[in-house]
Amino acid sequence: MQKWRKGPRGTMGAASAIAVTNPIDWILARRSIRKFHDNPITDDQLDTLLKAAMAAPSANNRRPWHFIAVRDRATLNRIAEIHPYAKMCYEATAAIMVCGDPEIAGRYWSQDCSAATENILLAGTAMGLGTCWLAMDSEHPLTRELKDLLNVPDHIEILSGVAIGYPAEQRKPRSQYESGKVHFERW
Amino acid sequence: MQKWRKGPRGTMGAASAIAVTNPIDWILARRSIRKFHDNPITDDQLDTLLKAAMAAPSANNRRPWHFIAVRDRATLNRIAEIHPYAKMCYEATAAIMVCGDPEIAGRYWSQDCSAATENILLAGTAMGLGTCWLAMDSEHPLTRELKDLLNVPDHIEILSGVAIGYPAEQRKPRSQYESGKVHFERW
Repeated sequence: MQKWRKGPRGTMGAASAIAVTNPIDWILARRSIRKFHDNPITDDQLDTLLKAAMAAPSANNRRPWHFIAVRDRATLNRIAEIHPYAKMCYEATAAIMVCGDPEIAGRYWSQDCSAATENILLAGTAMGLGTCWLAMDSEHPLTRELKDLLNVPDHIEILSGVAIGYPAEQRKPRSQYESGKVHFERW
Repeated sequence: MQKWRKGPRGTMGAASAIAVTNPIDWILARRSIRKFHDNPITDDQLDTLLKAAMAAPSANNRRPWHFIAVRDRATLNRIAEIHPYAKMCYEATAAIMVCGDPEIAGRYWSQDCSAATENILLAGTAMGLGTCWLAMDSEHPLTRELKDLLNVPDHIEILSGVAIGYPAEQRKPRSQYESGKVHFERW
């Protein structure tokens, strides 16, 4: 396995950011981060995030996903301009747009791409990066505009974007556990 | 944080099953497991899986999910009988059915519930458990039959089920990385 590179400020990625004595801590530590430092995201970091994404399960193992890895400042700014909930892309130093091909996976493409998106978030957290899931509505005209910006083929949908960067805010781990959401044996 | 209990066969959960020196290993180690030993899943294990599930992100933090935790042998067998791809529930000692409320989250309910499902799979892997994602098609008559079996309200959808148990098969970690699925800056 690839080792974590030292970050631009001399901090290690995951190892120092989260003490993974109990791996569930890592899931609880994943929070939506919207403020970032301007340290660049390296090729190796992107590569690890994409490996994590593609390790997701998919229905019938059809792997209907595609990923657009964006680090160009002007493109990140355009994403922030276009998408009303993507303003954190003005600060993010990278984004991964998670796309899916409904022709390959039918109605399951969005579930498969959601699992891949969650893997990116968790891998980023483990690497000491901040991430935020940008939900896209494939039927919204602004999503059409993003597709044009990123040259996404007509038959491909954008499921989500993940804003990525070195976190400039700290948020505490939490489970959001609600006992009223749990039903035993039957609803 | 809750500590891992010793499993029924004297094995620890995650700690011995997966050496988490690099957290990405844990994501790559998650494989679909369909053969299980008959050791029961404890209350604490279920609780940890559900905490992991509810730590998922959701659009506008609406948390549209509900979970049905099943350990009753007869119910697990019925799920296996009804669902053509759920035959592993004959061996699984637990299942978590992940349900969503479209009235709360609109079209995003399935993305939110998919992220929660992926968290269950990863938490299970970390605990040394085997898991398998059962994709459900909410428009299929058999899903209606499962809803009846589990007493799921009409307005609630079943997004997925996760079969859970002590693994009786070993599958190697893998990333499924495909360079052709990655596009830099633009498609």
